[in-house]
Amino acid sequence: VSTSAQRTTEELVAAAHAGQAAATGRLLSRVERGGEACRVVARVVFALGGSAYTVGVTGPPGAGKSTLTGRLVGALRARDDRVAVLAIDPTSPYSGGAILGDRVRMLDHSHDPGVFIRSMATRGHLGGLAFAAPEAVRVLDAVGFPWILLETVGVGQAELDVSRTADTTVVVLNPGWGDDVQTAKAGLLEIADIFVINKADRPGADEARADLESMLDAGSWPGADWRPPILETVASCGNGVEALLESVERHRAWLSRDGRLASERSGRLCREIESIVALRLQEQAHEVLARSGAESLRTRVEERQLDTWTAADAVLAELARL
Amino acid sequence: VSTSAQRTTEELVAAAHAGQAAATGRLLSRVERGGEACRVVARVVFALGGSAYTVGVTGPPGAGKSTLTGRLVGALRARDDRVAVLAIDPTSPYSGGAILGDRVRMLDHSHDPGVFIRSMATRGHLGGLAFAAPEAVRVLDAVGFPWILLETVGVGQAELDVSRTADTTVVVLNPGWGDDVQTAKAGLLEIADIFVINKADRPGADEARADLESMLDAGSWPGADWRPPILETVASCGNGVEALLESVERHRAWLSRDGRLASERSGRLCREIESIVALRLQEQAHEVLARSGAESLRTRVEERQLDTWTAADAVLAELARL
Repeated sequence: VSTSAQRTTEELVAAAHAGQAAATGRLLSRVERGGEACRVVARVVFALGGSAYTVGVTGPPGAGKSTLTGRLVGALRARDDRVAVLAIDPTSPYSGGAILGDRVRMLDHSHDPGVFIRSMATRGHLGGLAFAAPEAVRVLDAVGFPWILLETVGVGQAELDVSRTADTTVVVLNPGWGDDVQTAKAGLLEIADIFVINKADRPGADEARADLESMLDAGSWPGADWRPPILETVASCGNGVEALLESVERHRAWLSRDGRLASERSGRLCREIESIVALRLQEQAHEVLARSGAESLRTRVEERQLDTWTAADAVLAELARL
Repeated sequence: VSTSAQRTTEELVAAAHAGQAAATGRLLSRVERGGEACRVVARVVFALGGSAYTVGVTGPPGAGKSTLTGRLVGALRARDDRVAVLAIDPTSPYSGGAILGDRVRMLDHSHDPGVFIRSMATRGHLGGLAFAAPEAVRVLDAVGFPWILLETVGVGQAELDVSRTADTTVVVLNPGWGDDVQTAKAGLLEIADIFVINKADRPGADEARADLESMLDAGSWPGADWRPPILETVASCGNGVEALLESVERHRAWLSRDGRLASERSGRLCREIESIVALRLQEQAHEVLARSGAESLRTRVEERQLDTWTAADAVLAELARL
């Protein structure tokens, strides 16, 4: 028997499929590591997946995303479905390591072999999150999880990345979501398939709902025949979670009609390819600029004889010559 | 006299330099618009700047960044320095427009000709914020503002972008910054030149300070001879703001020794050029993939015969042939 460290990707996938969580974890570590390790895993799992359904859970800090995700896990387990949770930490480009934070609240499920929970960092490699998240989802898909929940920490780019990876995006807010989130509202509207007002037992839930409804009335969306429903939950005691899961399934059924799901997934794959191409080319550009031959170019920019856009043209010309 | 709409970039820069805020605003609009309009402005202003000092003000939502920025404006005005404020809205990639939000709190200064305040969106163009922010700073530099304050909304990528644009990055936190920000701590540590515990009159300021100190003790930084000081402010009444400005000037003086500032700025310019190159190449990759000739490639990916990385290789090969 080969040791785990020596196992090929194929062996790890087989072990993970048979229920070995450690093997799944090892595959995800290779994805996180990026570079060739990720690429080998990506090649193997790509062909194996396609049957999992991915639900993104996003929203501002403190909205209760982890608690709600934990409850969704419980609701799916009550149906005897296996489920994987990937908690994505967008701050990790700086830090090189995911901090579990409040995701310990999900440890209720940590001894259930039908549940896999992983907090994922992206270790600073360029465009890390945008690449690692879809690859990680494909690993979990390939090893047989029918449900994958993607939870993000924070507000901003991460939400966009999650909505680019998930089939259904659930945006979690609270009563009295105030000035601070105000600026993010328009963005949330564009990525939400379902809104959840969590902590709905607190004052202000009606106002939050009215606020969202009027924004939905004012907006227009690409898929205009799906209007995001607004649900209320109290994740801390489980209220509304079953209704949320039903709403996710309604969205899934809607997406599955008329080839919409296939077309959305295809569009996401195209954007992923574009990102990979850009990443590789950016690495090449970095190398070109770091060369000793580029020193005079850098100097002319520093001395403001040459602007950055013209310098970029010179680098592009050099790349074309490679 | 030509109308403003017809004015050349050079005329606008001259008018802006003479104190016409509308001309400054028009230049920034061209930067925001991206594309060729931005590029023309970028070329003209690039040669004119270099004397402004840029201070980034970042941190989690609700920390009081706008109020503190407004106070810094007041402190700089008390010294009779002109100051420009650029409020960067990272959520705008979705929304196509900056929402002023709590920046109305800065309107105290709106009738002072020595102060220019602008809320900036990035209108969804690829990599918008990362390009627009440094160009906008160069516009403000070129038209004669000695101080530029860059404020961000939100947590995440925007912080990184700001720290890549600012000479001194001030990270604003609050007493009891809790679990939600926990995950972002490591990231904040890496970009902070100065920490501010704002709302320091609330309980928990000592704990927040002790927490930061122990994280600083544990960490190691590239510029290890600058340990970020931890200041306390109550921005709502102005307490501690003068000390913060002095701290900014100490950091500036430290940076200015041994060519450190010039070298950091030069490094930032290189990264900017790399980003521009990557942007242009990603646009090319998008075009290649959108062509009818790429249809079979897309189909093979959709049918999982070809993984995304191998497809990216094919696009790269196609790009090289262009």
